[in-house]
Amino acid sequence: MQTLAKTESSLDIFEKLESEVRSYCRGFPTLFAKARGYTLWDAEGTAYLDFFAGAGALNYGHNHPALKERLVRYIMDDGVTHSLDMATEAKRRLLATFDEVVLRPRKLDYKIMFPGPTGTNAVEAALKLARKVKGRQTILSFTNGFHGMTLGSLAVTGNGFKRGGAGVPLTNAVSMPFDDYFGDATDTAAYIERLLEDGGSGMEMPAAVIVETVQGEGGLNAASFGWLKRIEAICRKFDMLLIVDDIQVGCGRTGTFFSFEPAGIRPDIVTLSKSIGGYGLPLALTLLKPELDVWSPGEHNGTFRGNNLAFVTAEAALREYWSDGALEAETIRKSERIRTFLTDMIEKYPALQGAHRGRGFIQGIACGAAELAGDVCKEAFARGVIMETSGPSDEVFKLLPPLIIDDEGLADGFARIEAAIAAAVAKRKGSERE
Amino acid sequence: MQTLAKTESSLDIFEKLESEVRSYCRGFPTLFAKARGYTLWDAEGTAYLDFFAGAGALNYGHNHPALKERLVRYIMDDGVTHSLDMATEAKRRLLATFDEVVLRPRKLDYKIMFPGPTGTNAVEAALKLARKVKGRQTILSFTNGFHGMTLGSLAVTGNGFKRGGAGVPLTNAVSMPFDDYFGDATDTAAYIERLLEDGGSGMEMPAAVIVETVQGEGGLNAASFGWLKRIEAICRKFDMLLIVDDIQVGCGRTGTFFSFEPAGIRPDIVTLSKSIGGYGLPLALTLLKPELDVWSPGEHNGTFRGNNLAFVTAEAALREYWSDGALEAETIRKSERIRTFLTDMIEKYPALQGAHRGRGFIQGIACGAAELAGDVCKEAFARGVIMETSGPSDEVFKLLPPLIIDDEGLADGFARIEAAIAAAVAKRKGSERE
Amino acid sequence: MQTLAKTESSLDIFEKLESEVRSYCRGFPTLFAKARGYTLWDAEGTAYLDFFAGAGALNYGHNHPALKERLVRYIMDDGVTHSLDMATEAKRRLLATFDEVVLRPRKLDYKIMFPGPTGTNAVEAALKLARKVKGRQTILSFTNGFHGMTLGSLAVTGNGFKRGGAGVPLTNAVSMPFDDYFGDATDTAAYIERLLEDGGSGMEMPAAVIVETVQGEGGLNAASFGWLKRIEAICRKFDMLLIVDDIQVGCGRTGTFFSFEPAGIRPDIVTLSKSIGGYGLPLALTLLKPELDVWSPGEHNGTFRGNNLAFVTAEAALREYWSDGALEAETIRKSERIRTFLTDMIEKYPALQGAHRGRGFIQGIACGAAELAGDVCKEAFARGVIMETSGPSDEVFKLLPPLIIDDEGLADGFARIEAAIAAAVAKRKGSERE
Amino acid sequence: MQTLAKTESSLDIFEKLESEVRSYCRGFPTLFAKARGYTLWDAEGTAYLDFFAGAGALNYGHNHPALKERLVRYIMDDGVTHSLDMATEAKRRLLATFDEVVLRPRKLDYKIMFPGPTGTNAVEAALKLARKVKGRQTILSFTNGFHGMTLGSLAVTGNGFKRGGAGVPLTNAVSMPFDDYFGDATDTAAYIERLLEDGGSGMEMPAAVIVETVQGEGGLNAASFGWLKRIEAICRKFDMLLIVDDIQVGCGRTGTFFSFEPAGIRPDIVTLSKSIGGYGLPLALTLLKPELDVWSPGEHNGTFRGNNLAFVTAEAALREYWSDGALEAETIRKSERIRTFLTDMIEKYPALQGAHRGRGFIQGIACGAAELAGDVCKEAFARGVIMETSGPSDEVFKLLPPLIIDDEGLADGFARIEAAIAAAVAKRKGSERE
Repeated sequence: MQTLAKTESSLDIFEKLESEVRSYCRGFPTLFAKARGYTLWDAEGTAYLDFFAGAGALNYGHNHPALKERLVRYIMDDGVTHSLDMATEAKRRLLATFDEVVLRPRKLDYKIMFPGPTGTNAVEAALKLARKVKGRQTILSFTNGFHGMTLGSLAVTGNGFKRGGAGVPLTNAVSMPFDDYFGDATDTAAYIERLLEDGGSGMEMPAAVIVETVQGEGGLNAASFGWLKRIEAICRKFDMLLIVDDIQVGCGRTGTFFSFEPAGIRPDIVTLSKSIGGYGLPLALTLLKPELDVWSPGEHNGTFRGNNLAFVTAEAALREYWSDGALEAETIRKSERIRTFLTDMIEKYPALQGAHRGRGFIQGIACGAAELAGDVCKEAFARGVIMETSGPSDEVFKLLPPLIIDDEGLADGFARIEAAIAAAVAKRKGSERE
Repeated sequence: MQTLAKTESSLDIFEKLESEVRSYCRGFPTLFAKARGYTLWDAEGTAYLDFFAGAGALNYGHNHPALKERLVRYIMDDGVTHSLDMATEAKRRLLATFDEVVLRPRKLDYKIMFPGPTGTNAVEAALKLARKVKGRQTILSFTNGFHGMTLGSLAVTGNGFKRGGAGVPLTNAVSMPFDDYFGDATDTAAYIERLLEDGGSGMEMPAAVIVETVQGEGGLNAASFGWLKRIEAICRKFDMLLIVDDIQVGCGRTGTFFSFEPAGIRPDIVTLSKSIGGYGLPLALTLLKPELDVWSPGEHNGTFRGNNLAFVTAEAALREYWSDGALEAETIRKSERIRTFLTDMIEKYPALQGAHRGRGFIQGIACGAAELAGDVCKEAFARGVIMETSGPSDEVFKLLPPLIIDDEGLADGFARIEAAIAAAVAKRKGSERE
Repeated sequence: MQTLAKTESSLDIFEKLESEVRSYCRGFPTLFAKARGYTLWDAEGTAYLDFFAGAGALNYGHNHPALKERLVRYIMDDGVTHSLDMATEAKRRLLATFDEVVLRPRKLDYKIMFPGPTGTNAVEAALKLARKVKGRQTILSFTNGFHGMTLGSLAVTGNGFKRGGAGVPLTNAVSMPFDDYFGDATDTAAYIERLLEDGGSGMEMPAAVIVETVQGEGGLNAASFGWLKRIEAICRKFDMLLIVDDIQVGCGRTGTFFSFEPAGIRPDIVTLSKSIGGYGLPLALTLLKPELDVWSPGEHNGTFRGNNLAFVTAEAALREYWSDGALEAETIRKSERIRTFLTDMIEKYPALQGAHRGRGFIQGIACGAAELAGDVCKEAFARGVIMETSGPSDEVFKLLPPLIIDDEGLADGFARIEAAIAAAVAKRKGSERE
Repeated sequence: MQTLAKTESSLDIFEKLESEVRSYCRGFPTLFAKARGYTLWDAEGTAYLDFFAGAGALNYGHNHPALKERLVRYIMDDGVTHSLDMATEAKRRLLATFDEVVLRPRKLDYKIMFPGPTGTNAVEAALKLARKVKGRQTILSFTNGFHGMTLGSLAVTGNGFKRGGAGVPLTNAVSMPFDDYFGDATDTAAYIERLLEDGGSGMEMPAAVIVETVQGEGGLNAASFGWLKRIEAICRKFDMLLIVDDIQVGCGRTGTFFSFEPAGIRPDIVTLSKSIGGYGLPLALTLLKPELDVWSPGEHNGTFRGNNLAFVTAEAALREYWSDGALEAETIRKSERIRTFLTDMIEKYPALQGAHRGRGFIQGIACGAAELAGDVCKEAFARGVIMETSGPSDEVFKLLPPLIIDDEGLADGFARIEAAIAAAVAKRKGSERE
């Protein structure tokens, strides 16, 4: 990799010029220069297995060749790049393909909104719409939910550190216990129902419930399908909208295109982002049942809601991977491998005090001692694996490889991660002994 | 344009599948397929002069060849596309170039934050930071200011229709009269100072003032440089931060790179987006004085804050256009042509009851009868010009061509726009006669 | 009662001139003219047993002779009536007596604040102080708590109908489950602790917890002493203030002067009103630990905080009833009579599907069919007893006689109430049969 | 005054037991024991002329003999003292008399609400009702307005020190410039109209405007009648309710019963408190146009809304003073004396840099050097006059004698106040010389 060798590999310039708010570059302290599939290379040419996948934005891996080909052709042909919400050829194709490949096979008739190309835009649009439709102001969200960093999304996000950044009270939202939040004896859905029924509970009737089926940032808490059905039933009973935020775990991360499919629920609004662009390009969608489409033109907008390069790669990815069931089947098969690996690790390394978390291609281990999760990630990076923690105390290390990873890649990753676990555990034992 | 001929040109699919929230596709009802420089072509092959420039996101025009070449090469080389906030080669270059070409020549030492790739992300980050630094909650914003559609940005935006979309009270912000808001007799800066000095005014001391030097969405109101200096002085006097939102009128739209340069002020925080990406790709920056960089790592973040394709084109655009003063000089020269054209129009068509608005490459005419502005835009579209209205009652038609437009393009545009004005005025007179 | 006979007994004038917001006059539709002890007479001379006692404001009955004598003498002597917060003789005596009779014997060293003469003023002052002391904004309150009707107090009140009256979002408060809210299996104190410990729970760390030991308006829910101690411990652990709102159940209503005494807790702030004035005159106190007295002079105030007539009767009542333990002992003894009566009723009238609620002189029966409680009160009124419902669905009928009621009065009341129950139950059975 | 001689005159007990929030007792540091008419006596027997009148709560002076006689008779007869909102004889009489003496002669048909016996309760009720009627959340209030210390009222109060006590953001209110706030050149009513007309002003359409005709706490700013009519017209134009807070300057303080009568406006809602009780006893009323009476029963309430002793004295005061025009005429005549005195003082003591403020029996002098106002009050107290400052910087000293003061009392007060002014001015000159 000659060209790379010529680049300056130092991170000095980031320290000097970039704000202290930067974070991942601290955990993965090298200068990345090239990427393909599930591999990243730094400027020195060192390769890394990517078990983070852009926090779920790279389900099809880096720089997928088929998508790349489509993307470059579009650029070379001077296809429209930036279009606000004018009609373009690329957008037309994406709409048609999403309808054909995603919606119709699942008997869903959502209308599609382009709220601006980040997840938090999609969530803000969903919350606005729910409040408009129902004429109510409160949104019911869940402990350890994560929905974004702008003020509306932050108000329905659980993380106290993130919330604290707002600098103002976060209002018009009420946080309720997620599935299994408070032990087996407490049915959190029944608890929520009790509060909604009780005119003296102090909870205003919410316009909507917003929920992730697997809480990616919040510690890989996977809601049971039964609980999700209960939440949907509560929404129907109290005339609230059900919003599923599928930004991180949609687009196949749990196997099915939408994460909520196996639960058999029909959300009123769905937010998608991250991997919907296919290639890692900014894109977000808010899907809404047709009868909810009470928007006035321009009532929500954004300069980059017409990011046509992402339309092109999004459409290509849908064609490539969702025209048939192959990816879904493979993802489910490999998910089992991941599950087996993690449960083995828990058994083999009791010092982890590990508990399995998550489902599909978003699984991990919650460590009894929170620092261990960070140590595992550090050791993994030293062994060429990019992997992150999750949870309110960063107590979970999580595996989010791209869906397109092959069995060799998985096996390679597992081997390195086990070595990282062993090293982290050993280091910890050592420090305890001292 | 054979390939285009083959595409389906109908807009039916947008009506069927896209949310009612879509707006520009209603004003420019055709299917766009190709773009270059200041020209867009639709699927039928009809060409349009682009006097809207992606609402200011396309200062260098569509699909600029030099940028395109750099972009395609980067993609072909498998440069990292999506990186969250990990260090990448493309980001390193952008940081270094921004420092070299923009900051150092202007003796500015801002630190650079990547808050997520839309303008509203940049604003939300700015507001969070100001509140954190000052430990106060209120932000002072201005009548007819526009800062974005997520909840924090919307609270400092003036437009009632946009605000109404929130569905909840917009709090912790106070709206003050912009320069020249209430006639010559009232000095709005002095009025603001009076409220801040008066312990009984009912205004909490703000953490910061957020201001656009030219209010793009709010009606092309251009603040005088003297007023901007007054606002800066008031910020210093009352220990508030000064945030300039240069998302729409920065990156050379008014001639200088930052719109505030000729006013001689030094904002504490600057937001950039739209044209900073160079090629119309999603990117946003929040610039902050180094002493304000009290962020904790990850206190604000976003999945697409590492949009490397935009880093590449942003860096290329800075190199191409800001290494010397040529673009600035040309922009200023052509701005005078625009000004002359518009003042001529006002004189020639008294039925417009026109008032000149704006400066640089963001000028327009406020029409005495608000509907006329929309009519002019409709007639312009019929004559192959894409152009939009602005202002609280859409009473301003505005000219925002790309900065790279040549004199022929301008002349062509002017001719068509004059024809559109004439037609709109004639139509109006006709309808009044009936 | 000759004079009364001359008065106009019609309620027409109330219907014509008084706002629709009036309520109790609808449930007790007669014109009251005279009162003494536990008896009220209407303009026709009909006597009523008062088992409502001004919603807890008349613990010493109506127009207590000893207090009356003191009050009239003070008025005749031209003692200061209205004094804002200037020092007066009457206030001096009240301060000294409250210290001597209430605080010192209980080894409490609260400072005394006169926040304005209604309960909600006392609560608003408590919330302000807690927020100031802790520099935090959230207050933790409980399901079915009631703290007042002004905006700050309403935000910590559970009742949805009352909350709805605000017309704006009620913010900076979080409602948590009261003791025994969700069945035996769920320890609500542990649940609250879990949320506070969990950095991802979405709950901002509160400045304070506000709690009633018995929820008077919320359905006579009596917290167990163990739970109250748990809540106090949680306050200590998380550095939150503990505010006990003893407005309704303080001043001896549960036997002891403060309702929290038997629980062995030491609140940081205590609010008192209702019976503290002794004679039914408006008065409220906010008690605070000396180290919390960080108020600036005048930071909270109110025109009638110097209601000297109430100071006189308050002082007289303290002297009369709290210099020794006689009232406390009698209240506890008679409370057992009330309890026995109510449990007998539950057993004897299974159609009530009754559950016993409350303690001390604030006990009642929660009826399986909510309407029954209202029917019992209506029938009671027809039999000369004034009595009210409580609870989110008005499903509880409650007995709040004055503490000074004698055994004959109790027996008389019980007999009439049983007759009312029997009638209500019979009526219901009749209507079910049809 | 033998009995007084026996009392303890020390203020130690207040310092020891009462919260630091106490304020007036610091400015008037003596123990008051007796009061009649416009005179207060302390425990030592020293007499003070009361030019503060309970901050406007004692328009008829202290312990008015006719009212006292009625009050004592009612108490001796065991009239109902505390009644919540049950119908009582005393309340019936008050309603009938208020209708007969106040409403009907003025052709007003307000319905009467008893919102709890303090001014802030009346304001909170007014704001709730306005929001309910209009279905909007914002209230428009004015710079230097004062409406109370509970959270809803505080949000429409201008004073920053009082607002700061809230400890949370005060929301759903917007503060606008009062009459004459920003010099002659700026018509504040026109400015407000401009903001309301402008869809981009950032101001949500308010449910109501709340205004004092003379801002008692805010510096005795008297709105011109023309401006008040403008504000009323703006309310009609934009379908907002007009709330006049007449708590301090109603009940004859400016001459007419309602302060707004000479302006010829018809508010939708009026709040009354302070002197409405006649004798200084807690009472407050919210008056509302009949068509606004959309309250549900009990939607707003309060334990002491049935303070019958205040009903008795309120009714007696209305009969005594408002059955004919004598008090009004006398008040107007004496107001001119006060005005003449103050303008004389301004002329005679140029060191005051005085500006006349207020009208009727609420007039004062705004001092160029803010501390002077406090000094005048201190010197006045030393000369046996009780008098207070006002305004955001306490820069105004104000004369609020009881309306019943005779000419001798006024003359006596003027003489002492002039001496106080002379002393304050001399002291200041002395300190400047040093």
